[in-house]
Amino acid sequence: MMTDLEKQIQFIMELDKIKHIIRRNYLADGSRRENDAEHSWHLAVMAMVLAEHANQKMDVLRTIKMLLIHDVVEIDAGDTYAYDANGHKDKREREVKAAERIFCLLPGEQAIEFRKLWDEFEEMETAEAKFANALDKIHPFLLNAASNGRSWKEHGIKKSQVIKINERTHEGSEALWQYIKEQIDLQTANGNLQ
Amino acid sequence: MMTDLEKQIQFIMELDKIKHIIRRNYLADGSRRENDAEHSWHLAVMAMVLAEHANQKMDVLRTIKMLLIHDVVEIDAGDTYAYDANGHKDKREREVKAAERIFCLLPGEQAIEFRKLWDEFEEMETAEAKFANALDKIHPFLLNAASNGRSWKEHGIKKSQVIKINERTHEGSEALWQYIKEQIDLQTANGNLQ
Repeated sequence: MMTDLEKQIQFIMELDKIKHIIRRNYLADGSRRENDAEHSWHLAVMAMVLAEHANQKMDVLRTIKMLLIHDVVEIDAGDTYAYDANGHKDKREREVKAAERIFCLLPGEQAIEFRKLWDEFEEMETAEAKFANALDKIHPFLLNAASNGRSWKEHGIKKSQVIKINERTHEGSEALWQYIKEQIDLQTANGNLQ
Repeated sequence: MMTDLEKQIQFIMELDKIKHIIRRNYLADGSRRENDAEHSWHLAVMAMVLAEHANQKMDVLRTIKMLLIHDVVEIDAGDTYAYDANGHKDKREREVKAAERIFCLLPGEQAIEFRKLWDEFEEMETAEAKFANALDKIHPFLLNAASNGRSWKEHGIKKSQVIKINERTHEGSEALWQYIKEQIDLQTANGNLQ
């Protein structure tokens, strides 16, 4: 029989694998692609820095918790590229199965708490989840812009696709949506985006 | 003149550099060394999972915020290995200078807030800072243990040194200190630690 602490440590060590899940976007300097742990850290910092721009008053701790764990399902399910229509067909199914395995490593009540946070992020209904999802889309945009559109160019991504991916950003933050719209125009004008 | 939002985005993009700061310890599978962004993400998750084991009731949001930004000074100051006595001589001076530059990228009041969080972590006086510092020491221990002591072996680290590094863990969490003590004995018994 494992103690609760042993179960918690097992969960923490299992999550180390997220450092091997490689995303499509590059770091700001374009030197290499980013992994899920780095992405999740950066999102949590963004929530800390940008919380005042949320449309609605929110619980910043819950927003950060969601962001810290929103991608752990990719340990089993892999990263599905935002512009991969085919990969999105069974994404939900693969990720739910992963959530069931991974969060259940935790002691009973905590497993439920973590699963609820993941569900909340996915459902995108609360103020916290809307803001967290807005950051999750803005973050690769900022890194793509900083790295001269390297990932956009590699995959032939068009301005209309970037607008579509970010179309719900305004639900989390009107201020960030206005900022991103201007940046999309700039990135189109300078040729990083088709 | 930059708007507050532009300053915040500039700070967020500057922090991307932390993904290039390489630590001494390896990932759990021993495949490569860890960077500061991955370490900071893992610590924030640990705070989320292990908060109940803190000696004193604490504000988990403040603990997580401290952990998310505690290493950003290493962008300028570099990572100082825990067992490098020489590197520790001017560590404080190098890091304070870095804190002054990096946090001042933020708008005025927020720059002060972030600097205070960093100072709080460093001073290790509050319940939040004591717990955060305990996690900061336990984390590389767990990864070293998982990777068969690879980093300890490379640097000829002894049991007594690991005990010394973790000696203040009990101030943040008696429960975690008991656990780590047992694990140090195990790692010595199996030869990973001299």
